[in-house]
Amino acid sequence: MIAAPGLDAPFDLRARLADLYCAYSDALDDGELERWPDFFTENCVYKVIPRENFERELPIALIYCESRDMLADRVVALRETALYVPRLVRHLTGNIRLRAIEPQGLRLTANFALFQSMVDQPSELFLCGRYHDKVVEEGAGLRFAERICVYDSTVVPTSLVYPV
Amino acid sequence: MIAAPGLDAPFDLRARLADLYCAYSDALDDGELERWPDFFTENCVYKVIPRENFERELPIALIYCESRDMLADRVVALRETALYVPRLVRHLTGNIRLRAIEPQGLRLTANFALFQSMVDQPSELFLCGRYHDKVVEEGAGLRFAERICVYDSTVVPTSLVYPV
Amino acid sequence: MIAAPGLDAPFDLRARLADLYCAYSDALDDGELERWPDFFTENCVYKVIPRENFERELPIALIYCESRDMLADRVVALRETALYVPRLVRHLTGNIRLRAIEPQGLRLTANFALFQSMVDQPSELFLCGRYHDKVVEEGAGLRFAERICVYDSTVVPTSLVYPV
Repeated sequence: MIAAPGLDAPFDLRARLADLYCAYSDALDDGELERWPDFFTENCVYKVIPRENFERELPIALIYCESRDMLADRVVALRETALYVPRLVRHLTGNIRLRAIEPQGLRLTANFALFQSMVDQPSELFLCGRYHDKVVEEGAGLRFAERICVYDSTVVPTSLVYPV
Repeated sequence: MIAAPGLDAPFDLRARLADLYCAYSDALDDGELERWPDFFTENCVYKVIPRENFERELPIALIYCESRDMLADRVVALRETALYVPRLVRHLTGNIRLRAIEPQGLRLTANFALFQSMVDQPSELFLCGRYHDKVVEEGAGLRFAERICVYDSTVVPTSLVYPV
Repeated sequence: MIAAPGLDAPFDLRARLADLYCAYSDALDDGELERWPDFFTENCVYKVIPRENFERELPIALIYCESRDMLADRVVALRETALYVPRLVRHLTGNIRLRAIEPQGLRLTANFALFQSMVDQPSELFLCGRYHDKVVEEGAGLRFAERICVYDSTVVPTSLVYPV
């Protein structure tokens, strides 16, 4: 067994993927929700699902969107609702790993930790888990055709209305 | 819109920037405060500022230094004061992103999470936020001409005397 | 002094090291303990030690294994014991830094944060610290000849039976 199987991906692909992951997190951390759907293909799948359900292949997800339009709708809903307490979000994404290069796209996983800061409270860990992604070349850039956000906790974070 | 705009930076520049960010965090995590000013240019700007003030362009910062000498003074003050409880610091820096290559220097941002460990207590998240940096070539290396540490929390961490 | 000393390592070595660190964390995060010893050489040294002891060169470590067989034994013991509450682990590894290229191997350090998720509880920071590694070429891959996991906290995390 080879300890570090890492796919023999060209350097420029690695760099472009790193840039994609950075740009995605930055848009969310900047609160630029309207830019969020642009990171996805038109027929994308976006899910936020507890690890327990993901591993048992149970379908129930906290968020389930099946197109870029649904993501855009979600942003509008988020902007128009005031039911949740305002918070700042901060992503740390690591362990970005190219798993497979398939004709339909690139398979990647990455670990994430999300920290939130609410008014008059210290920052705190909010959620951690792993992205399971399919990334495709589209036009001049890379986009997510699939992003499954699998979070580790079994308790549903009540504030999880914001994209991961 | 291109989802992953990432600048077309040569690989060796990317690698050198990654090394700079690593070396900076490592020096602080090792408690080698005396080495900290060396990461900056002589006329550097170093600030630690809450995100609220940064976004509204309010000038008030928790730490504000306008030269490498001021950083060195700060280290001396830190070493001579015993008013703060000893703690170990640990940086996780991610999302390092080259934003612009300008004649005056490179513009970058990066996310940080700082964890602290105090005697007889478990490690905890202390601060998270984003660096807004200007990096310049100087002699044989890269140095920070500007490092603005923008932290997310609105509460001032009482122990924030240590460099970020 | 050069601010960013980073060794002049070829890009493909950097990429392979990044892959090794990713694969290691992923195996543990996936709970695939049986794959864990494969990341080490036969005569490896693996330690988990508090920073206080590491810096004073005190020998006492929480975990001390001197061969791949000892790691494998540890996995069996972990699988057979039910004394610890089940938890999910999530690694964030950053600041991976090549420190020296020696005839006996590559010297690296990296920062880690470990988050754990227990049933019906939110995810939380569990441990943070630094890996001090020696990595060698073996067969077609890279393996750890030495991995010293130095954690920052002075309190012994009672649940630290799981590999770091």
